[in-house]
Amino acid sequence: MLADLKKQVFEANLDLVKHGLVILTFGNVSGFDRKKGVMAIKPSGVSYAKLRPADMVLVDLEGKIVEGKLNPSSDTPAHLALYRAFQEIGGIAHAHSEYATAFAQAVKEIPCLGTTHADHFNGAVPVTRFLTAKEVKDDYEGNTGKVIVERFARLKPLEIPAALVAGHGPFCWGTTPAEAVKNNLALEKAAKVAVMTLLANPKIKGLPAYILRKHFLRKHGPQAYYGQKKGVRKHE
Amino acid sequence: MLADLKKQVFEANLDLVKHGLVILTFGNVSGFDRKKGVMAIKPSGVSYAKLRPADMVLVDLEGKIVEGKLNPSSDTPAHLALYRAFQEIGGIAHAHSEYATAFAQAVKEIPCLGTTHADHFNGAVPVTRFLTAKEVKDDYEGNTGKVIVERFARLKPLEIPAALVAGHGPFCWGTTPAEAVKNNLALEKAAKVAVMTLLANPKIKGLPAYILRKHFLRKHGPQAYYGQKKGVRKHE
Amino acid sequence: MLADLKKQVFEANLDLVKHGLVILTFGNVSGFDRKKGVMAIKPSGVSYAKLRPADMVLVDLEGKIVEGKLNPSSDTPAHLALYRAFQEIGGIAHAHSEYATAFAQAVKEIPCLGTTHADHFNGAVPVTRFLTAKEVKDDYEGNTGKVIVERFARLKPLEIPAALVAGHGPFCWGTTPAEAVKNNLALEKAAKVAVMTLLANPKIKGLPAYILRKHFLRKHGPQAYYGQKKGVRKHE
Amino acid sequence: MLADLKKQVFEANLDLVKHGLVILTFGNVSGFDRKKGVMAIKPSGVSYAKLRPADMVLVDLEGKIVEGKLNPSSDTPAHLALYRAFQEIGGIAHAHSEYATAFAQAVKEIPCLGTTHADHFNGAVPVTRFLTAKEVKDDYEGNTGKVIVERFARLKPLEIPAALVAGHGPFCWGTTPAEAVKNNLALEKAAKVAVMTLLANPKIKGLPAYILRKHFLRKHGPQAYYGQKKGVRKHE
Repeated sequence: MLADLKKQVFEANLDLVKHGLVILTFGNVSGFDRKKGVMAIKPSGVSYAKLRPADMVLVDLEGKIVEGKLNPSSDTPAHLALYRAFQEIGGIAHAHSEYATAFAQAVKEIPCLGTTHADHFNGAVPVTRFLTAKEVKDDYEGNTGKVIVERFARLKPLEIPAALVAGHGPFCWGTTPAEAVKNNLALEKAAKVAVMTLLANPKIKGLPAYILRKHFLRKHGPQAYYGQKKGVRKHE
Repeated sequence: MLADLKKQVFEANLDLVKHGLVILTFGNVSGFDRKKGVMAIKPSGVSYAKLRPADMVLVDLEGKIVEGKLNPSSDTPAHLALYRAFQEIGGIAHAHSEYATAFAQAVKEIPCLGTTHADHFNGAVPVTRFLTAKEVKDDYEGNTGKVIVERFARLKPLEIPAALVAGHGPFCWGTTPAEAVKNNLALEKAAKVAVMTLLANPKIKGLPAYILRKHFLRKHGPQAYYGQKKGVRKHE
Repeated sequence: MLADLKKQVFEANLDLVKHGLVILTFGNVSGFDRKKGVMAIKPSGVSYAKLRPADMVLVDLEGKIVEGKLNPSSDTPAHLALYRAFQEIGGIAHAHSEYATAFAQAVKEIPCLGTTHADHFNGAVPVTRFLTAKEVKDDYEGNTGKVIVERFARLKPLEIPAALVAGHGPFCWGTTPAEAVKNNLALEKAAKVAVMTLLANPKIKGLPAYILRKHFLRKHGPQAYYGQKKGVRKHE
Repeated sequence: MLADLKKQVFEANLDLVKHGLVILTFGNVSGFDRKKGVMAIKPSGVSYAKLRPADMVLVDLEGKIVEGKLNPSSDTPAHLALYRAFQEIGGIAHAHSEYATAFAQAVKEIPCLGTTHADHFNGAVPVTRFLTAKEVKDDYEGNTGKVIVERFARLKPLEIPAALVAGHGPFCWGTTPAEAVKNNLALEKAAKVAVMTLLANPKIKGLPAYILRKHFLRKHGPQAYYGQKKGVRKHE
């Protein structure tokens, strides 16, 4: 069932490793089939070296296993909370990549300091509050998703396809698993360059809003003109 | 047409990736044939893994496509503005390399703090002003080139073959596409070492002017004595 | 004798190199057989490229060579002091990995700033005092172990499987040589992200205690629920 | 003539690249035969990819070419000044490695903050003064060697086998070309960890003198006990 989605999720998980975003086994990617209401996700604690497409676990929106013999990632309830709240998304990547995790641990949003950031995120990448002791006790992973959704009350998920969970790390998403991983990579680069920018000039205020909008919109939305016309050979 | 130039531009684009200067697909190299008045440039949004020499797009100085089925890089008008203003140059490289981009985002020139810098750049690498809202709206990419040219009013392009566009990143150039990429690599290293130098000693003032001149001139210009005599086997 | 332990120790030593934790030849891993009271350890000053499983030296708890023609690592007395004091451990890794060594040189514990840290260490990773001149003169390597043991008077070795020796670097341990290396890798990542976190927000106070406990306990101890059930295919 | 020395120098030059110490072509290693009074050195501006052992240039202590068709490295006079002044040394490595160069540009010595440093350098690695305008004009490369020799008036070259030239970068040496490169690698690691140490604790004072001495002497000099006895299989 959903062999193609499992393959996409499997390959996106390996891409996390290939891009150096994963520390140890701390990473997982999922994909969601909206029509069937089923998510494919990496099994928990299985090493990347031995992972196979068929190991991907299928669960429904309430977390019930639909197919698969292994336990799904322990972060499964966080992924499901995002798929329930963000109707536009079809893939989620979670990795403790170094610089994005540093901002999450610093409990600071990643400000938009340049066009590398603006090409992917239409504004600062926000950071959630810490979970309360009660939220941790009751349903830690589910409430991890909840604080992200709460933080996005007035934000559009596909305009800012990432959030930092305070004291934890980034969650990134997109319309597909591959796009979620690409956004994680873009986030990590933006975070690293932001750290270096603040070292070079601690007082910098960030990109003027009109340049931020321009860069985001030349790549995304109806007026986008970056890349090739549809039907023309296009890669990446 | 211009198969050799296309090949040079193709290879220089791949060198950007090889040297780790490119973040995602954010990079493009062009080359210019002065006699024909034609530029070869990377197509927009095509992944490096699938790029072929024949994909390079040929455009004239006004941006009209002379040959090629793909859209040229969206930064094409910025490249053309530089070729029009800087008669000495034959190649341009643009990559969001991490440390040079950090200085661009910090809106700070890269000061000449040592001979690694002085061997390639005869002084600080300057940073432009931000584009105005009107400039962004009217012709974003063309005006990106314009602010560089404006900043170089009293500078010689081949003595300081790079500029930082505020909030964006570096543009580097040279007499050939390969030299432009080499200057981008030198800029990135100079920028990284500058960040670390300022961490080690925030009050450092930079290299005395007489050492800066000496280092630049022993490699460039009529008195250069670095390397091998002409006719002798010389590489790189 | 103890061919399997030697092989484990040999492979764990190579893993130090593979993970980039070793600077030059500064690293050694040992393993301990509790029943026989014998430790296998890397020989001193032998390059990793030429190391063979049979080169591992076997010594008893007093440091007497039981088997092997080469000198054991000069850090042998430090390893033995830890095996004598910490009954739960079966492997020790010592490498001058860059960021963990920076904290050791800074004589600062690595605070628990996020869940990447909490997944492996149930609190801050402590730093010892400097050895006294007399301790250095009398038995430098043995007393290096002694100050770690002293620092752990009120700590549980398997809850915080690492210590920083002031001015020197980290020692990490676990139930096996492989686990000791894995903890060294986790420590290095936690240390790097901690440096970047403090750059992004020098005033950050660290992870709330209830999140720290939650993360440690979901991976370790009787209530752990991360990973797969026993008997199910489990890797890493 | 001196085919073995040329081979050693050739291999040591490639090791600079292998260890990531070289930025662009900025690096050169030489070796000196005391009996013959002849130095072998890398030719100037030749790319590492095309270098052959036979390309090494032989020059005498006054800089006269004894054998070789190519120009010797433009840093030749600096190397010769060191071989003339430091009778104990047989190899010199010069590379603009990132972190050591940062300290040179910061005009700050690299303090001994830990045992990684102390294992190779018996104290802080000193920095020279800037050359005067007259020294630059008269004999830039020769005077680069002169300021190092001047700075070592009261230091022993084999106890601190490296110097930082202000605004330029490190020169490292040893009894052989290979040892010079190894000392450059150790210097670069010590410099990087020193930057991170100072970030983690700007007020740190450095390693107590009695630990510094202990670490240097357990690896160097008549009481050294690190490694294997002579005659026993020893590598690296």
